Amino acid sequence: MSKPKLRVIPLGGLSEIGKNMTVIEYEDDIIIVDAGLMFPGEELLGIDLVIPDTTYLLDKKEKIRGIVLTHGHEDHIGALPYLLQQINVPVYATKLTQGLVSVKLKEHHVMTEAMLRTVLPGTEITLGKIRVEFFSVCHSIPDSTGLIIYTPVGTIVHSGDFKLDYTPVGGRPTDLSRLAQLGAQGVLLLLSDSTYAEIPGYTPSEMVVGESLDRIISEATGRVIVTTFSSLISRIQQVINSAAKYGRRVFIVGRSMTDTTRMAIELGYLKVPDGILGKLDELHNLPPEKVVLITTGSQGEPTSALVRMLNKDNRQVHIIKGDTVIISATPVPGNEALINRTIDTLFKHGAMVFYDRIAQVHVHGHGSQEELKLLLNLVRPKFFMPVHGEFRHLSFHARLAQVVGIPKDNIFLMEDGGILELTADSARVAGKVPAGDVYVDGMSVGDIGSLELHNRRLLSRDGIAVVIVAVNKQTGELVGLPDIVSRGFVDSEEAHDLLEESRQLVAQTLSQEDHTTEWSFVNSRVREVLKNFLYEKTHRHPMILPILVKV
Amino acid sequence: MSKPKLRVIPLGGLSEIGKNMTVIEYEDDIIIVDAGLMFPGEELLGIDLVIPDTTYLLDKKEKIRGIVLTHGHEDHIGALPYLLQQINVPVYATKLTQGLVSVKLKEHHVMTEAMLRTVLPGTEITLGKIRVEFFSVCHSIPDSTGLIIYTPVGTIVHSGDFKLDYTPVGGRPTDLSRLAQLGAQGVLLLLSDSTYAEIPGYTPSEMVVGESLDRIISEATGRVIVTTFSSLISRIQQVINSAAKYGRRVFIVGRSMTDTTRMAIELGYLKVPDGILGKLDELHNLPPEKVVLITTGSQGEPTSALVRMLNKDNRQVHIIKGDTVIISATPVPGNEALINRTIDTLFKHGAMVFYDRIAQVHVHGHGSQEELKLLLNLVRPKFFMPVHGEFRHLSFHARLAQVVGIPKDNIFLMEDGGILELTADSARVAGKVPAGDVYVDGMSVGDIGSLELHNRRLLSRDGIAVVIVAVNKQTGELVGLPDIVSRGFVDSEEAHDLLEESRQLVAQTLSQEDHTTEWSFVNSRVREVLKNFLYEKTHRHPMILPILVKV
Repeated sequence: MSKPKLRVIPLGGLSEIGKNMTVIEYEDDIIIVDAGLMFPGEELLGIDLVIPDTTYLLDKKEKIRGIVLTHGHEDHIGALPYLLQQINVPVYATKLTQGLVSVKLKEHHVMTEAMLRTVLPGTEITLGKIRVEFFSVCHSIPDSTGLIIYTPVGTIVHSGDFKLDYTPVGGRPTDLSRLAQLGAQGVLLLLSDSTYAEIPGYTPSEMVVGESLDRIISEATGRVIVTTFSSLISRIQQVINSAAKYGRRVFIVGRSMTDTTRMAIELGYLKVPDGILGKLDELHNLPPEKVVLITTGSQGEPTSALVRMLNKDNRQVHIIKGDTVIISATPVPGNEALINRTIDTLFKHGAMVFYDRIAQVHVHGHGSQEELKLLLNLVRPKFFMPVHGEFRHLSFHARLAQVVGIPKDNIFLMEDGGILELTADSARVAGKVPAGDVYVDGMSVGDIGSLELHNRRLLSRDGIAVVIVAVNKQTGELVGLPDIVSRGFVDSEEAHDLLEESRQLVAQTLSQEDHTTEWSFVNSRVREVLKNFLYEKTHRHPMILPILVKV
Repeated sequence: MSKPKLRVIPLGGLSEIGKNMTVIEYEDDIIIVDAGLMFPGEELLGIDLVIPDTTYLLDKKEKIRGIVLTHGHEDHIGALPYLLQQINVPVYATKLTQGLVSVKLKEHHVMTEAMLRTVLPGTEITLGKIRVEFFSVCHSIPDSTGLIIYTPVGTIVHSGDFKLDYTPVGGRPTDLSRLAQLGAQGVLLLLSDSTYAEIPGYTPSEMVVGESLDRIISEATGRVIVTTFSSLISRIQQVINSAAKYGRRVFIVGRSMTDTTRMAIELGYLKVPDGILGKLDELHNLPPEKVVLITTGSQGEPTSALVRMLNKDNRQVHIIKGDTVIISATPVPGNEALINRTIDTLFKHGAMVFYDRIAQVHVHGHGSQEELKLLLNLVRPKFFMPVHGEFRHLSFHARLAQVVGIPKDNIFLMEDGGILELTADSARVAGKVPAGDVYVDGMSVGDIGSLELHNRRLLSRDGIAVVIVAVNKQTGELVGLPDIVSRGFVDSEEAHDLLEESRQLVAQTLSQEDHTTEWSFVNSRVREVLKNFLYEKTHRHPMILPILVKV
């Protein structure tokens, strides 16, 4: 009998950025690292969220010992409410991460059942034959960790999301000395964050942003409005510090920013000097130069607090002439146009705007090439699997690993669902489990298929023309002229003649045919003749939906 | 009687990037500077193109003396086929620009009527009481010009699109000495390109890209595939130069790239050493290291030659392992996701890819802040109107003008349609003419309104549910159960029960009502009850389209 093998199976995070999830399996023990979501691209019309396909786990429920979370970002915890409804096992994470998980589970009403276990960086938990040690890493949210996973076959290091910031704000620096020790002892496999593997050099320190923010706040003559991600607690801390320094009070606007800051203050991750934080109804008592507002909206989201303030949708605060707005974030790919429009509208309202292209008001939370090489050098793993990235990021990370001396054959450029099977001295790709995107649309999870998406796409381009054909159910003869109702295709009044001609054309076509009581026949005949006619007249391709009414 | 005034009216280019068009009017003479189009953003579902609203010009046709084009890019010439069908006046431009206009007008079958007049930089034309002198500027297409417009009120300088490249490739540098002379003589108004007014410093020279391309081509061991905009003739020239240097032959792939390069060679804008250019059927005779392919697809467009090569849609060339692909362009905002996906797919096919984030394989064609300041300093206009940009770009450009000493009151931050009225020593905003976006969708120009776009948006999110209600035309009683057909909303088979319940609900609702023969009543009642029911069950909001059939 062959020795038991260790299997590492990424279920998400290797085809697209986001929805990170990795399965580690040894004999009868399975642990899950992270359970993230992804926000859908423009092409996923109407889809709210995307989560990983967890089919593989469902018939192995009794083997799953726990879910281990590296940090509290949506792309690492966002799928938990869905996963825990199927597989209710203990969830292990650091304090702030658990705080964010609790907020999320409460929203989804799955809190009561969940078993949340808080761990400290530097400590270890035992999950069957596998032990997991959490170590601190620096990332754009405090309490981020990487994992040292001890298995009977060997040690796996999972970097989590990380950068090497020697002057972090709030959080701890990445625990390089622990990694160096491990490297000396021997690491079987490293899984490491590839998000910024295409960027040369080093990622700047969060402190650089603090200096920019401080300068802008010190020079502003009116109110300062800072917009960032609500989870970027170090950024919020820096804004609070500068506000205090220049005698400004701080007001938090918007629900998600309020919820997160309250939680971060309660758990001790955000330090606010007494008397700094104000309530919105005190705002009108203060002169503009005594005010800093912190809010969401860095992606130009129409429902964000910033955009509501801009559209006068917020009852208490509107953007006014003389405001200084700092967009302390970079555009998530796909949001560029929305953000540009928001910046333009801010300028039109007389605000000065600082954003990534004109000032260093943001740094990202992931290591660039030199940092990734440093980690590889310290950990010196036998085998390497780049994770967290699109294919080009993984490819660049694989090249970096080769450069620092890991043999090409020991580097595994995997895809979601791929199985990496390891012994103490070998590793190979051993097939594939089901993996992919599961769409969350409204209340339903996974029942929107490619047909519906295809139809939404068709509808979005040239709209729809519904053709109602009434026929005598005995004779098949047309009863009256077919009717056509269109939406999103042409202006019904202006196109009155076109629609009349279309009705006549359908009538004429069907009057020459038998089989007019058969829906499939009427369907294909009407679509065929109208498709050509409408394209010829308009160069558009509306969806054509014939309805047969037998009377 | 007051003195005749000069009016400058931007009809496009000041609300969004693209569709540039400016009207200059003095007494009975009107000239039009540029007639550009804009490609629609994601939110303009199904719209093909956007052109400026030219209502203002239509009842002044007899005054229009000519259209003057600064250069041959789509955002400056793309609306011509539409404009010339309404206003057929002479078109003045340099040789290459006219070449590109001819290609475009032929496509639209409006060539025969058009009066195209080729001018040389440095020469002057007379259009009624207005004279126009063309001067060379450096931009990302050869034969680009700015305009010196002499009017009885004073001299206007229009920068066109420009940068200051002292080592341009193919084209000429911006004619700074002519501008310095003019500045000394006195310029009434400057209109200047704001596209990159948010970027500090100087735009790098095209030569910098040449060095990158040369290094990549010299080091590549397989084929090299360069993708760029077909109008970027200087870029194509640099690729051809390096190919010749390293003994590689050049193959052009794709229709638009083939058309443009052929035209540019014929007109003398592209210099190709003998024996370098090959035909695609010679390709299989050459070893990979002797081949450079030039193609479109830098924006990841699904119909581009590059993407077709990748999808094996192109009959003659496919992407193979060992290819080096250079994406010599930056993403047009909104295209980022598409381009990233293309890069990923290239990596998956075993290609190495160079793109803007990892190598300097592109520079843009517009001046950055220092260049804009230099131009302002040389021209020293009395009045200044920033053009070509979104509001934030215009705002930054206005700030730059203030910094170099133009009084704030002499700087006009206009919007499309605004009228700037000038005398020899005054300028003021004097009202507004109609201006805005005209949508081209299929064959129709301007008849797609906001209602159709709104409907397309609704349809794109959660699809449509068509409810067919048949009633007895005398009694108003329901005939049979209402039917529901949905597209893009739910999977009809999986949601069978939901749709059945919905039918029952509609039947039940209507059976309790009178007025069931009135469409407006049935329409509002069915929509109201189904909207709530479907949202409660699915958390989705499909468009609900009731159809009343009276039998």
